[in-house]
Amino acid sequence: MRHVIAIDIGGTKIAGALVALLESGETPPAAVAERLRGFVTARSAVATHPTWTAATVKTGGNDVAATVVSVVQKVIAHAQSHGLTLSGVGIGSAGVIDPTGRMIASATDAIPGWTGTKLADIVEAATGLPVIIENDVHAHARGEAVGGAGNPFASTLMVAVGTGIGGAFTEGSRILRGIRGLSGHVGHIVAPGAEGNLCSCGADGHLEAIASGPGMTRWFNQRGGNAVDARDLEAQAEAGDELAIQVMAEAATATGQIIAGLVNCFDPEVVILGGGLARAGDLYWGPLKAAYQTQLMPALRDTQLLPAALGSAAALVGAGELIRYHLDEFGDR
Amino acid sequence: MRHVIAIDIGGTKIAGALVALLESGETPPAAVAERLRGFVTARSAVATHPTWTAATVKTGGNDVAATVVSVVQKVIAHAQSHGLTLSGVGIGSAGVIDPTGRMIASATDAIPGWTGTKLADIVEAATGLPVIIENDVHAHARGEAVGGAGNPFASTLMVAVGTGIGGAFTEGSRILRGIRGLSGHVGHIVAPGAEGNLCSCGADGHLEAIASGPGMTRWFNQRGGNAVDARDLEAQAEAGDELAIQVMAEAATATGQIIAGLVNCFDPEVVILGGGLARAGDLYWGPLKAAYQTQLMPALRDTQLLPAALGSAAALVGAGELIRYHLDEFGDR
Repeated sequence: MRHVIAIDIGGTKIAGALVALLESGETPPAAVAERLRGFVTARSAVATHPTWTAATVKTGGNDVAATVVSVVQKVIAHAQSHGLTLSGVGIGSAGVIDPTGRMIASATDAIPGWTGTKLADIVEAATGLPVIIENDVHAHARGEAVGGAGNPFASTLMVAVGTGIGGAFTEGSRILRGIRGLSGHVGHIVAPGAEGNLCSCGADGHLEAIASGPGMTRWFNQRGGNAVDARDLEAQAEAGDELAIQVMAEAATATGQIIAGLVNCFDPEVVILGGGLARAGDLYWGPLKAAYQTQLMPALRDTQLLPAALGSAAALVGAGELIRYHLDEFGDR
Repeated sequence: MRHVIAIDIGGTKIAGALVALLESGETPPAAVAERLRGFVTARSAVATHPTWTAATVKTGGNDVAATVVSVVQKVIAHAQSHGLTLSGVGIGSAGVIDPTGRMIASATDAIPGWTGTKLADIVEAATGLPVIIENDVHAHARGEAVGGAGNPFASTLMVAVGTGIGGAFTEGSRILRGIRGLSGHVGHIVAPGAEGNLCSCGADGHLEAIASGPGMTRWFNQRGGNAVDARDLEAQAEAGDELAIQVMAEAATATGQIIAGLVNCFDPEVVILGGGLARAGDLYWGPLKAAYQTQLMPALRDTQLLPAALGSAAALVGAGELIRYHLDEFGDR
């Protein structure tokens, strides 16, 4: 059994994990779960946890890279203390990654100075291990597709609804990443009812503007509600507030409609819904599923819509699967 | 240079063509264009024309297959008269094709009895040539992507607006066909403004319900206009009819918005717009392009939107490319 390091780099936190790559059909020996003190993904080929984390520093790309190296070294120390040999490092990172998976091609100010950082070179130089990087939304989708709710299915449409609405189309271990690596902006499609609401991208009337956590909350407050975030809004809906129930239902309906439209276009075997809002209750899932079913074409009506299985571990599982895929394609050094 | 047969099977017509497969970088010798009496696709690896056509018979799948064989035999006779050896037959057909490209998995009543027809076996038995089939929308997209407007680009989103609104995502010679071969229903996404309009698929408020040729015409007539088809509607718009101008602009705007949303999701290198309505003038293209640009995310704003180059020959070019791909993968017999 090979062991690798998985890294998940977000705007606030860098997480690292030791991942045991199970082979096809292999069930994880109890010793693996024990040794990793953790969590073995249901139906998956990846065991992960515990994680080592650090805050994402705000003083420049090289400082962030140094923090990543320090997290990687913690995982290496843990692996060594258990006598494990490591095969490589898979990294999911915020930002657009160059097509060869070596550096950060561009990034927003969520990580200042991140654009242009030659992260794979830096981590390889520090560890001697092969390194590959992909965008964190793509890593998240890969994790759910290969090791999570999408595990038995040949293709998935992953949609994550949280601070934004992102996702990806996957076929096996392959992510449809787009020609510039920019695929996955599932929330940036016009949605009926969203007209007049400004999206985070600057356009008018996108799904994300009314159906992401912040979008839904803003929409609620505009219409006379008073919530601090989507969790608060949901609590008010659960407590019987009519407007909260209505806004949540309308956001869920718009989300279900757009997801069904993407299924009509691309015919995935299954849809996986993740992100913070996927943990909401029936007041969200009920209208979402109803709209989804109503908008599917007859021949596509049996396309299942499943909740994500891995939560925030999905990007780590995906980063582990990314380096597995890379090693299988290009071999260990 | 290899020569193959391409077949395009629609609800009303079966077309066949002799196709010369040029190799990468090869420019077609004048003799090829001369011998094929025709048309060499701009920037493409395929020369086609003349075509041999027959009406699609309505008396059952085996009768349609027999008509296909008769069209194939006309092309073979033409090839023999020019001393050409044929390598295979590529077929684009209405209906859902089984994943191996051998038979019609399901079809609507546009071709009665077509479901279940083992078309590849039938044509192979009659000709001794290897045969492969794909859905006609996919063949159309393949033709434009590989031999038409998409030729220099690594990936395309092809959208055809005509009687329906269909399309496909392509990467090189690869079509994202979907797990059941059902990808491509680009018109079956909810569109702002389309609420209350019933789609051909039975759902409410899809783009196709207001922006396909028949959809746009029905929408115009509902709102007090009087047109027999989209061409008539466009003529009235060109003549200055305010309502016709407005309905055409609204349909074009909705189309441009949805296409931009799909670009935001999937990041193709280029978008190709084909079908009957793509031949309309500025009263259509103007609002469509404006809405497309407005709805693209900033990082994706340079994604070109190009008119299709091959017109109705696209499916034939695509069928030729399909059998080329199959022969390259699996070899000649």
